[in-house]
Amino acid sequence: MWNITELIKKKRDGHPLTEEDIKHFIAAVVSKENGYNSISESQIGAMLMSMFLNGMNDSETSILTLEIANSGKKFEWPAEWKELLVDKHSTGGVGDKISHVLVPALAACGLKIPMISGRGLDITGGTLDKLESIPGFSVSCSPEQMKQCLEEVGCCIVGQTEEIVPADRVLYRTRDLTATVNSVPLITASIVSKKLAEGVSALVFDVKLGKGAMLKEKEARHLAEEMVVACSMNNIKTTAFLTSMDAPIGKMIGNSLEIVEVLECLKGSRTSVDILELVESLGVELLLLTGRAASKKEGEAMIRQVLDDGSALEKFQKMMVLQGVAPDLARKLCSHDVDPRELLPSTRHVTRLHYQGSPGYIENIEALNLAQVWREEMNRAECFNYGAGVELLTCIGRRIEKGEPWAVIHHDQDCLSESQLSRLEGALRVSPEKVLRSSRIIDVMKSEKLSSKMK
Amino acid sequence: MWNITELIKKKRDGHPLTEEDIKHFIAAVVSKENGYNSISESQIGAMLMSMFLNGMNDSETSILTLEIANSGKKFEWPAEWKELLVDKHSTGGVGDKISHVLVPALAACGLKIPMISGRGLDITGGTLDKLESIPGFSVSCSPEQMKQCLEEVGCCIVGQTEEIVPADRVLYRTRDLTATVNSVPLITASIVSKKLAEGVSALVFDVKLGKGAMLKEKEARHLAEEMVVACSMNNIKTTAFLTSMDAPIGKMIGNSLEIVEVLECLKGSRTSVDILELVESLGVELLLLTGRAASKKEGEAMIRQVLDDGSALEKFQKMMVLQGVAPDLARKLCSHDVDPRELLPSTRHVTRLHYQGSPGYIENIEALNLAQVWREEMNRAECFNYGAGVELLTCIGRRIEKGEPWAVIHHDQDCLSESQLSRLEGALRVSPEKVLRSSRIIDVMKSEKLSSKMK
Repeated sequence: MWNITELIKKKRDGHPLTEEDIKHFIAAVVSKENGYNSISESQIGAMLMSMFLNGMNDSETSILTLEIANSGKKFEWPAEWKELLVDKHSTGGVGDKISHVLVPALAACGLKIPMISGRGLDITGGTLDKLESIPGFSVSCSPEQMKQCLEEVGCCIVGQTEEIVPADRVLYRTRDLTATVNSVPLITASIVSKKLAEGVSALVFDVKLGKGAMLKEKEARHLAEEMVVACSMNNIKTTAFLTSMDAPIGKMIGNSLEIVEVLECLKGSRTSVDILELVESLGVELLLLTGRAASKKEGEAMIRQVLDDGSALEKFQKMMVLQGVAPDLARKLCSHDVDPRELLPSTRHVTRLHYQGSPGYIENIEALNLAQVWREEMNRAECFNYGAGVELLTCIGRRIEKGEPWAVIHHDQDCLSESQLSRLEGALRVSPEKVLRSSRIIDVMKSEKLSSKMK
Repeated sequence: MWNITELIKKKRDGHPLTEEDIKHFIAAVVSKENGYNSISESQIGAMLMSMFLNGMNDSETSILTLEIANSGKKFEWPAEWKELLVDKHSTGGVGDKISHVLVPALAACGLKIPMISGRGLDITGGTLDKLESIPGFSVSCSPEQMKQCLEEVGCCIVGQTEEIVPADRVLYRTRDLTATVNSVPLITASIVSKKLAEGVSALVFDVKLGKGAMLKEKEARHLAEEMVVACSMNNIKTTAFLTSMDAPIGKMIGNSLEIVEVLECLKGSRTSVDILELVESLGVELLLLTGRAASKKEGEAMIRQVLDDGSALEKFQKMMVLQGVAPDLARKLCSHDVDPRELLPSTRHVTRLHYQGSPGYIENIEALNLAQVWREEMNRAECFNYGAGVELLTCIGRRIEKGEPWAVIHHDQDCLSESQLSRLEGALRVSPEKVLRSSRIIDVMKSEKLSSKMK
């Protein structure tokens, strides 16, 4: 007879778990979710801590991932979509609105993207929270509704439903309580299991590292590698990008403010250079992995065209409508003649920050400081304050003079606190020397390069 | 604000917990027991696994012990008893009935012993289970009843009540589920906290090691040391004995069978040499620690006398009566003219085992094999079968001839199974050479010798 305590003991003592062991553990976790008592919460906590402290090898991680994916319903799509189904996942950054631009752009290139995304965690914003700042936008979609979106538009961005990966829901909740979030194998299994359940053929990961990211460089590299290995072992073509997360991505931080920036990008604006760099790089990779583009050059041209000719914007507009936004509002938001700020949640006050130091060049804008103030303002109200946020008027490399405004803070309370103002001012790093803006992409990991590891 | 997840993180990352940290953790554990949700079961499991895998230093263990002791009611005894209050704890062995002889003997020597004891665990028998094989014997005593026993008799042997060390109850239950039982700091805190709550001034520990014990030698030594340190840090004079647990202690294994052997010892029989060795050694140590005996020689004489002159037997008889046994039954059990077997639970069948090998000298009798069969027979009925057990007709060093009976198995089922018979036969190790019976005491650890460790 199989015994959960014996299984914990095995992992506790550093022995690798077998496929059978992991199957039993996940089955018990799911049965718990269904009200059975084949495992206690304390056992889940102890097992997670053993996995955290003793680690998991590639094979254990890959099996855990598959078993979590198999714990619930898996999407089944028409056979002819097989090679077209793709997704992208980011470990979360400050101002990270890449998905909102990339997903409709890829749909405009003919791919199918059934993106299941997440909420904000700690200082990072959530893809879903940002979309929900659009009045009417619903991220709760049944598999049937998702299929309709993919048929009619080619994409959707939705939340996790009860039916898919129930084991992940239990484990995620427990990890949060038991200080076992920051474990590479557990993060890998949690992220990749959802992608397996989505039934995609190709994936790109955007693994953030730097002062505004949750992982340190060594961990981030390890995670990128593990995710690529776990996907490849489960037959998904995968590339991971390691990207820098010191300064915020783009110029907006906050839910509705980020949607404003997304709409600008989709309308063809080229002012948010780093957003475009990431959208292009990740997008081209997926076009190459699926064979939609034969070369990097062809892929770049495809992405640029759908952003320039309005076809990505049109996909975004249709996706909004299918996900509950009133057609008239969706149309107005996507119109070139209307300022979307007038249609989205805003705050009662704005505070313009003026630079007080010696003139120079912007070396960095600390994402962490800005994100903290945004989160404080967002959570001030009883429900989310979607309008709260930070709008940057400058960017890395740009010259700044004393007294020049560099940011606008959107907030509801009458005044920002001393602590907030000091953190905001502390976010700006100015150098007397010229600063060159560098690429956000630090490294790229492809499954073929890691294949020796998978033997 | 203090946060349980942060606390788990601290221990997870190998940092020692402070007094404040441990106070908070134990307070949360107790509040859980009272229906509050300041900590989840998963967090208790994860914290225990972190403690298990990362260990606890002497100071953490000592604080954890004190906080568990402080989690409930502590006994308060008359001031004049202060120096007389003692206790003994064994980590559990096969046939271990030392407490049943030692406690009344010490009471007869004038000490006060408020022993709070435990149930059988795995293959070891429980002091309480053995007592409960005496019809009417109750191990549930209120603090008031315990005080009455100590006033009138000088001793009692009871179970843990709801009021004392509630934190230990939660942790013990969870450790059992989460494979975190076998951790020296956690075992130390669990055992010593109860002794602190008992309010004793001196303690002896009997830490078993060998094939029939739960701990390996290295762990057993570590545990003995940790318990002595934790007691001393909390002002209890303590000595730990490391004793061998390869062969069963005495000649009986089983609940009522062991009571029969206890009564024989209390009636002055000297046939169970190893029982008498341990009773004398542990007893003398407590008489020395409390100053009741000035020398080892004096202590030995005191113990021998109370066993020989019937005063220890009288204490046992009075204790039985105060703990619920009918006075007439107690009197008969302690009479020299009555066979106690006729008054205690017995089984429907007995099977006499005959030695089938070449003649020789008994080198060992594997406690583990015998205990397994006893546990199987004990648990066969719907309620405990108190009469089940093994009675040895030989002992280490004794010569044995082919065909000679060496054990009597007491059981209820018609026949013992093949597997049981083969394990029983396998228990006997016979050598062609003469075998010298050696002392059970392997080592003795006293607090003064460990004092350098406590700086």
